[in-house]
Amino acid sequence: MRVLGVDPGLTRCGIGVVDSAPGRRAVFVAAGVLRSAVSARPEERLAAIAGGLEEWLDEYRPDVVAVERVFAQHNLASVMGTAQVAGLAMVAAARRGVPVALPPPSEIRAAVTGSGRADKGQVQRMVARVLRLAEAPKPADAADALALAITHLWRPSGLAAGTADGAQLTAAQRAWAAAEAAAR
Amino acid sequence: MRVLGVDPGLTRCGIGVVDSAPGRRAVFVAAGVLRSAVSARPEERLAAIAGGLEEWLDEYRPDVVAVERVFAQHNLASVMGTAQVAGLAMVAAARRGVPVALPPPSEIRAAVTGSGRADKGQVQRMVARVLRLAEAPKPADAADALALAITHLWRPSGLAAGTADGAQLTAAQRAWAAAEAAAR
Repeated sequence: MRVLGVDPGLTRCGIGVVDSAPGRRAVFVAAGVLRSAVSARPEERLAAIAGGLEEWLDEYRPDVVAVERVFAQHNLASVMGTAQVAGLAMVAAARRGVPVALPPPSEIRAAVTGSGRADKGQVQRMVARVLRLAEAPKPADAADALALAITHLWRPSGLAAGTADGAQLTAAQRAWAAAEAAAR
Repeated sequence: MRVLGVDPGLTRCGIGVVDSAPGRRAVFVAAGVLRSAVSARPEERLAAIAGGLEEWLDEYRPDVVAVERVFAQHNLASVMGTAQVAGLAMVAAARRGVPVALPPPSEIRAAVTGSGRADKGQVQRMVARVLRLAEAPKPADAADALALAITHLWRPSGLAAGTADGAQLTAAQRAWAAAEAAAR
């Protein structure tokens, strides 16, 4: 299975593609960041990101697109553009017949640390370790998108709605926690 | 000039098309509402609305698309879907080379009442009067989209960013106020 993760953003939109290998191993395929010029008109910025997302979908043909769920409570200044980019990714996937998963940020953080807390640096280091990369993917947006894709790959529930409450560790969370412990 | 107004929404998205005639008269062209099933997956709902918006754009070929500006503060429960639909309308317009205006709700209300206060019924009655319709366009989402298109048509600043603070009445606002006074 191939998962394309999208860390939505209007100024920087992270994209990461991961394949699953036997033993639930996650294999790095590609990662990058789409950018739009802050000085451009909003509709031009959105169209630029949408075009980039479509190119990635057409090039890598994922089986699932995982888009980080956006909540209205967070980052009020940028949340509208972030939500709009998430919507564009969802429509681009739907139009290609690709299922969409919307894991919430808390689940991604929980999968990384096993306890719901992680900073950007930790995510980058863990993504590099899990994907056996020589160094952490940069910028952080690309690493976040890879973390998103890995989290989805390891989800026991597949495409089920992301309602994990963190009370119990999933297999993915245990795997992350073990990998993190080994990295210390 | 032809303006296509979009009152964005995921469950109901209002669309209204208005032409300008000599003397700044606004002429009704078409209005309607796009709907998506609440039971469908989010990406399918967004794709359905996106497809409908594109059909309207291709059929009516507006010179400008006016999308009501969405603010994160309002209607937290539905704001993400609303923002995403607004983004889809913006991208659909940009991809067709059609300029996008983003008037804020306060400006639309101000244009309707001359003072920034108006309920749904007032907007519907005023839209019917301005467009010389026998009855108010229904549902309210379609009337709102027509009000949006009329507001843009009457804007002195055209595509300038919507920064009207309501301190001074624009020509459009005076026209609305006069029409409203005549309707009493």
